[in-house]
Amino acid sequence: MTTVKFATCSPYKQTKQQHHITDFKHKEFLVGSGQDKHVKTYNKEVPEDLKVINVALFALGRAGSIHLTNVMKNSRLNIKYLVESDRGKLERVQKEWRLPDSVLLSPHQDQKVFSDPSVHGIIIATPTYLHKDLVTRGLKAKKAVFCEKPIADDLEDTRMCYQLAKEMNQPLLCAFNRRFDPSFSQLRRKVQDGEVGQVHLVKTVARDSPVPSIEYIKVSGGIFHDCAVHDIDLVCWVLGEYPTHVFASAFAFIPEIAAVNDHDTVGFTMKFASGTISMTDISRNAVYGYDQRLEVFGPKGMVSCSNERPYPLVTSTVHGQSEPPLLYSFPSRYYQSYINELDHFCDVIQGLSDLSIPGDNTLKITRIASALAESAATGQMVEIMY
Amino acid sequence: MTTVKFATCSPYKQTKQQHHITDFKHKEFLVGSGQDKHVKTYNKEVPEDLKVINVALFALGRAGSIHLTNVMKNSRLNIKYLVESDRGKLERVQKEWRLPDSVLLSPHQDQKVFSDPSVHGIIIATPTYLHKDLVTRGLKAKKAVFCEKPIADDLEDTRMCYQLAKEMNQPLLCAFNRRFDPSFSQLRRKVQDGEVGQVHLVKTVARDSPVPSIEYIKVSGGIFHDCAVHDIDLVCWVLGEYPTHVFASAFAFIPEIAAVNDHDTVGFTMKFASGTISMTDISRNAVYGYDQRLEVFGPKGMVSCSNERPYPLVTSTVHGQSEPPLLYSFPSRYYQSYINELDHFCDVIQGLSDLSIPGDNTLKITRIASALAESAATGQMVEIMY
Amino acid sequence: MTTVKFATCSPYKQTKQQHHITDFKHKEFLVGSGQDKHVKTYNKEVPEDLKVINVALFALGRAGSIHLTNVMKNSRLNIKYLVESDRGKLERVQKEWRLPDSVLLSPHQDQKVFSDPSVHGIIIATPTYLHKDLVTRGLKAKKAVFCEKPIADDLEDTRMCYQLAKEMNQPLLCAFNRRFDPSFSQLRRKVQDGEVGQVHLVKTVARDSPVPSIEYIKVSGGIFHDCAVHDIDLVCWVLGEYPTHVFASAFAFIPEIAAVNDHDTVGFTMKFASGTISMTDISRNAVYGYDQRLEVFGPKGMVSCSNERPYPLVTSTVHGQSEPPLLYSFPSRYYQSYINELDHFCDVIQGLSDLSIPGDNTLKITRIASALAESAATGQMVEIMY
Amino acid sequence: MTTVKFATCSPYKQTKQQHHITDFKHKEFLVGSGQDKHVKTYNKEVPEDLKVINVALFALGRAGSIHLTNVMKNSRLNIKYLVESDRGKLERVQKEWRLPDSVLLSPHQDQKVFSDPSVHGIIIATPTYLHKDLVTRGLKAKKAVFCEKPIADDLEDTRMCYQLAKEMNQPLLCAFNRRFDPSFSQLRRKVQDGEVGQVHLVKTVARDSPVPSIEYIKVSGGIFHDCAVHDIDLVCWVLGEYPTHVFASAFAFIPEIAAVNDHDTVGFTMKFASGTISMTDISRNAVYGYDQRLEVFGPKGMVSCSNERPYPLVTSTVHGQSEPPLLYSFPSRYYQSYINELDHFCDVIQGLSDLSIPGDNTLKITRIASALAESAATGQMVEIMY
Repeated sequence: MTTVKFATCSPYKQTKQQHHITDFKHKEFLVGSGQDKHVKTYNKEVPEDLKVINVALFALGRAGSIHLTNVMKNSRLNIKYLVESDRGKLERVQKEWRLPDSVLLSPHQDQKVFSDPSVHGIIIATPTYLHKDLVTRGLKAKKAVFCEKPIADDLEDTRMCYQLAKEMNQPLLCAFNRRFDPSFSQLRRKVQDGEVGQVHLVKTVARDSPVPSIEYIKVSGGIFHDCAVHDIDLVCWVLGEYPTHVFASAFAFIPEIAAVNDHDTVGFTMKFASGTISMTDISRNAVYGYDQRLEVFGPKGMVSCSNERPYPLVTSTVHGQSEPPLLYSFPSRYYQSYINELDHFCDVIQGLSDLSIPGDNTLKITRIASALAESAATGQMVEIMY
Repeated sequence: MTTVKFATCSPYKQTKQQHHITDFKHKEFLVGSGQDKHVKTYNKEVPEDLKVINVALFALGRAGSIHLTNVMKNSRLNIKYLVESDRGKLERVQKEWRLPDSVLLSPHQDQKVFSDPSVHGIIIATPTYLHKDLVTRGLKAKKAVFCEKPIADDLEDTRMCYQLAKEMNQPLLCAFNRRFDPSFSQLRRKVQDGEVGQVHLVKTVARDSPVPSIEYIKVSGGIFHDCAVHDIDLVCWVLGEYPTHVFASAFAFIPEIAAVNDHDTVGFTMKFASGTISMTDISRNAVYGYDQRLEVFGPKGMVSCSNERPYPLVTSTVHGQSEPPLLYSFPSRYYQSYINELDHFCDVIQGLSDLSIPGDNTLKITRIASALAESAATGQMVEIMY
Repeated sequence: MTTVKFATCSPYKQTKQQHHITDFKHKEFLVGSGQDKHVKTYNKEVPEDLKVINVALFALGRAGSIHLTNVMKNSRLNIKYLVESDRGKLERVQKEWRLPDSVLLSPHQDQKVFSDPSVHGIIIATPTYLHKDLVTRGLKAKKAVFCEKPIADDLEDTRMCYQLAKEMNQPLLCAFNRRFDPSFSQLRRKVQDGEVGQVHLVKTVARDSPVPSIEYIKVSGGIFHDCAVHDIDLVCWVLGEYPTHVFASAFAFIPEIAAVNDHDTVGFTMKFASGTISMTDISRNAVYGYDQRLEVFGPKGMVSCSNERPYPLVTSTVHGQSEPPLLYSFPSRYYQSYINELDHFCDVIQGLSDLSIPGDNTLKITRIASALAESAATGQMVEIMY
Repeated sequence: MTTVKFATCSPYKQTKQQHHITDFKHKEFLVGSGQDKHVKTYNKEVPEDLKVINVALFALGRAGSIHLTNVMKNSRLNIKYLVESDRGKLERVQKEWRLPDSVLLSPHQDQKVFSDPSVHGIIIATPTYLHKDLVTRGLKAKKAVFCEKPIADDLEDTRMCYQLAKEMNQPLLCAFNRRFDPSFSQLRRKVQDGEVGQVHLVKTVARDSPVPSIEYIKVSGGIFHDCAVHDIDLVCWVLGEYPTHVFASAFAFIPEIAAVNDHDTVGFTMKFASGTISMTDISRNAVYGYDQRLEVFGPKGMVSCSNERPYPLVTSTVHGQSEPPLLYSFPSRYYQSYINELDHFCDVIQGLSDLSIPGDNTLKITRIASALAESAATGQMVEIMY
C-alpha cells in the first residue's frame, strides 16, 4: 500500500518540459543566448538598415532616465542623440554609460536630430508643454515617435498629431506603459480568452509612492489627466469597450495639494453599455509603497494582479510575520513594462508588429478623464458621447 | 469620534521617504540615471584605465550565455573576446548583440586573450575539465579570474590555483552565485545582525527544473559536487561556521540516473560545533518549477526566503485559486544574482571591494561535499577535520 | 564570527510568553477549561438567576440553524423553545440535538414563549415580515430581543420598535453579525487606534456564494436592503461617521434577477463630511466562494482583511500552484462572528456589557440603503440629511 | 469585441454549486441544522442505546480540558463522570459548564466509572504513568478507550493493552490527533490518490510554542517519545510504509533542558525501502507561534500544508507588511483535529467506522522513536527490524 504503485515513467521518456508563458525572464535568457527570437509570431526578415535602430532621446527626467537605461541595454537600439538642458545630468549619464561627446545635445541643438537621416526614431520624455512641437517635428522628419502621455496639451492638438502621423506614415506611440506590464498583459489575455466569462466588474487601484513634489503636481494637468488616464486606459483595454457614463468623487487631504486646486484622493466609477461596472481608487501618497492592482470579475470567476515585492523574504517573531514594503515607485514596479514598451517600439519600426495603441484610443481616454474631472467638480454623473 | 482626529501633518512637512534597502531595482534606476553610485561604502576614485573593464568570456553554454547578456548590459564592462568552439553559437550571439568579428575566437585562438594586455579579466564558463588550465593561464597573464565552480577537478589543483592567485596578486572568484541573490543576502544580513539570535537550525531546499540532460549528469561530478556544494556554501556563509559532522541519504528514482551511479534525490544533515543543525533536501526534477528555499531559525524567531514567481497573478474559479508555476529554471530564478556577481567582479577589479569568497572557503566546501558523498555511500555519519 | 555570540538567555529566565490578542481560539480554550472569563473588562458578579440564560429561537432557516447550533454549544445558554412551522425540520434537529419534546413549538403555540417568565431572551430568525410582531411581543413580555436585520419592514416601524425597547428597558439587538467577525473587529480597533491616521479611503467587497434562490431574492427587499446594508454598516462603524452623499451603479446580468426588478451587481460610493471616500462592490454570484474583504487606507498606511480559506493546503504541479476555493458561504465564513454575536447577547443580558449596536445606527443604515437604491434608479448622486 | 460574447447561461439554469470538500465548517452547518449526517459513507442505523454516548473523562490537564469542551459541544456525547484530583479545577469547570455534582469524582472514587454499566467509553488524559492502569481497567469493564499517547510506559505493556482490547472486543484509540487535522487528512488523501506520484521526499516541521515547563519536560519521556512520535506517525501514515533506517541529530540550547538530559532541537532523517526519504525538524521553543508543516514531494509535483493564522489581517506601513503571529499553541492549531478525533471515537462506538489507528502502528511508532533516540546518542544511523 506504499506509494511505489504511483511510480511514473522516467522524465527522459517524457516530452521535455518547457518554460511557462509567464516566465518572461527565461524568454529573455533564450533571446540573449541566441536560442529564440524577440517576436515569435512574425517570420519576416528585418531589412538590413533597420537591424540597428538609431534613436534620439529627449530629456532626462524620471521617465527619460528609465528609457536611457533600457536603450543602453537593448541589443536592437543605438543611442544617437541625447537632448537635455541640464548639462550636469548629461555629464553624469555620459560617465555612467560611456557615451561619446557627439551624443550629447542641448535643446537648442536639437535640429541635428531631425536633420540626421540615420535617426530612425525619437523618444520624447520632456515636460508636457514641449510634446506637441517635438512630435510634429519628428513626424515631419519621417521619424517614428514614442511619446510619453499626453501627446499634446489638448484634444485638438492631439488629433492633429495623429492625423500627421497618418499622413507621414509614421508610428506615433503614446506611452501607456502599464499595458506592457507582464502581469496585466497576461490578465488581459485571460479575460479576452473568456476565462471569467462576460465581465461584470473591473477594479483598479493606483496609489502613488512617494508623493510627487508640489512643483510636479502644479504642472501635471491634475490628478485625472496625470493619474486616472492610466486606469481608464487599462480598464477599456481589458474590456475592449469605452464607458457611457462616469462618476467621480475627489478630495485633497494634503493642504499643499488643496492649495493648487488639485486632489490627492479619488474614487471613480465607469458604466459600460454592456452592463459592466468599473471602480478605481487613486491616491497620491501610499507610504507602504507603490500600490497597483487590477481585478476582473465575472460569472466564471476572477483574475487579479496584486502587488509585486522585491523578494519573498519573511521575518517571523513574537510580534508576527513581516515582509519588506512593496516596491518603492514606478521605476521598479513597472521595470519590465518600460522594457517591453521599448521592445514594442522596436518591433513596430522593424515591421514586426502593428502599433498596439491606436490614436483613437488616446483621444477617447483623454475625453473620459475630462468627464471624470467634470463629475468630481459638479458631483453628478456625466454621460459621454463619442 | 470620526478619524479626523488622526489627521497627520502634510507629507511635504515630513522628511522625504526613501526607497527600502530591499528595492534593488530602484537602486539600479538611480545608478542608471546618474543619481547614485554602484558602491556606496567606498569613496575611492577608480583609475582611468579601469573605468571600462575589458573581459574575455570562455564558452557559451548555459552559464556562459547568462554572463554574455549581463556583460553586454553592464555599463562598466566591455566584451573583448568570446571563445567558443561552436561556430553557430558564436554567429547567433554576434547577430543578437552586434559584436565585431574581432571578438569571436575559436578555442585554438585563445592565446590572443592572454597576450592582450588590455584584457583586465576573464570569465570561465567552460566544461569543468578545462577550468584549471584557463585559470592558471589567466592568472599567469595577470588577469582577474571569474570561474564557475569548481575551480579545478580536485582539491590539490584547486589549492594550487588559489596559491597562484596569491602569488600573482590577482582575484580568483569562484562563482557561488547564490550568495549574490538579493533575498539570500538580505536574509544573511539579518542573521548576522542577530535578528533570530544564535541559530538553532538552518534549512535549505534545492530542487532542479527541468531535469538536466543525462549527458550533463554524466560529467557533472555527481549530485554532491554539482548541486550540494551550493547549499553547503549557503549554510556555512549564513552561519560563519563549518560543520564537524555530516550525514547524507540519497536515492535514484530515475533509472537513467541510477545507471550512471548518481542520485536524483538527497537529504543531508550537518552538525556544527556551536550546536546548530542544518538540513537540506535536493532533487534533480521538480516539475512545478525551480524550487529554492532558505530558512534560519533561532530563539528570537525565523527568517526565510520562499520562492519567487514571475508575477502575482491569481485566477479564482469554482475549483479553487491558482497561480503560475515557479520560475522555470536558474536563469530566471537567479537572474539578479548573476548580475550582482558580475558587479562584484567589477568592484574587485576596480578596487572598490575585497573579494567576498576566499579560496579557503572553496576548499572547505569541496571537502564537505566529498564527506557527504562518502556518508551516502556508507550510510554512516562522517566527521570532518579541517 | 559564528552566531554563538547571539545566544540569548534561557526562555525559563524570561517572562512567560502569552497568546496574541488575535488567537481567539486560545482564549476559548482558556475559558472552556475554567482558566479565564468570557468578559475580562467587567468584574461584576452575574446574578444567580441569569447564570443560565433561557432563550427561545424563532424559525430554522439558514440563520436560525446557525443560531441553534451556537446556542447548543454555548455554556451560558439553554434552549427553552424552538418555534418553527416545518415539523420535519423540528424533528430533524430534535434528533440531532437530543431536545425534549417540550422545546418544540408550532408558530400557533408561540404565546407559550411570551408567557413563560423563565425565558430571558428571544432570537428571531423568521422571514422579515414577521419581525415586527415578534419584536414587539417579545419586548412587551420583558424579554431581551435578538433580531436578524431588518427589525421591521419600514423606517417608521423600526423606530417604534426601538422606542418600545427603551420603554420596556430591554435590549433590542439588530444582528449585524459582520461586526463580530474577529478580523473585522481587530481591523476596526487598529483604525480607531489611529494606526493608519485619518482615513482617506475605505473599500469593501461582498460577493455572495452560492447565488441565492430566486424565491429568496423576491422577498429579500432588494440587493441594497438585503446586502448593501452590511457594507454600509461596516464602513460607518469603522469610520465612526455617516455619509453625506452616496452614488450607486447597478445591473442585472442574470435574467431571472432582472425579471424581478432587482440587480445582481452593484458598485457604490459614499462621501463623508471629513473627506473620506468609501467604495463597495457587491455581487450575488461569486463561483469561487464567498468573497468578503475590507480595506482601510490612510496617510500612515493600510489595514486590510482578505479572505479566509479552510486551510493552507497548496498543490504544485507543472500547471502552477493551486489552493482550495474560498469558504463556500456565510455559515463557514462568518462562523465565529455568529458565535461572538450570541456571546454579546449573553453579555448584555447578564449585565456585563452595553448593547454595541444602538437603534439610531440601524435607522441610519436603512436610510442610506434607500438613498443608494434611489441613486441606482436615477443615476444621480443623492444627498442624505439625518 | 467586448466581453458580452462571453455571456454565460444563467446560474439558475446550471447545476447548483455545492460546497468544496475542504469546507468542513459548512459540513458542520449542514449536520447541525439536520440537513446532513455525520458519516456519509455508512447507511447503518445506530442502536437506540448508543445514540447518546456516555463518557468519563480522566484528568483536566491541557489535553483533558480540550476534550471536556469538545465533549460538551458534541451532540452525541454526554459527560457522565469527570475524574480529577484538583478540586479547584473541578469546581471551575463545573461552574463554566453547569455540571451536576454527580459528575465530579476524585481519583479515589474512580471505581464508580468502571462499575457504571451506562458508561460507553472513557477518555484518558492523565499523566503518562497512570495510562496503563486506566486502560486495562477500562477494557476489562468493557468500555471503549480513548487514550492520549503513549498507551503505556513501555512496548511490552503497550502490546499487552492492545492484546486485551482484542480479547475484550473493545476499541483502544491511541490519540494521534494530528491525523485528524483537516489539512493533513486532505493532503494524505491527495498523496494516496497519486497526485504527486511515487513519493520521493516527505518533510515535517514541528516547533512547539510556548516552551513547555521544565516540570513537564522532566516527565515527558524525552523529545523523541514526546514530540517526534507525532511526526513519525504522520510520515508513515502518509506513506503507508515504515522506515528501515533512521538517523537523528539533537542538541540542547536551553541549559535547563540540557540539565535534565533532554534536547530542545532535533533534526532527523528516515529511509524507506521504496527509496523515499523523510526529514523532520523539531524545536521546543518557537517564539513566533506553533509551527507545524507537512510537505510531500514526488515526480508529479508537491502538496504541502503551511501554517494557519487566526485570520488574514494585513497591516502595511512604511516598514513593510505584517500579519499576526501564527496560532499560539496546540489547542488553537489543532482545534479541529481534537473535535474530529472525538467524532471518530463516536463513530467507532456507534459502529459507523472502523478504528483508524491500529495497535500495530502504535507499537511501530514507539520503536522508531526509540531508534531515533539511540541514533542521536550514538551519532550513527540505526537499522530497524520489525
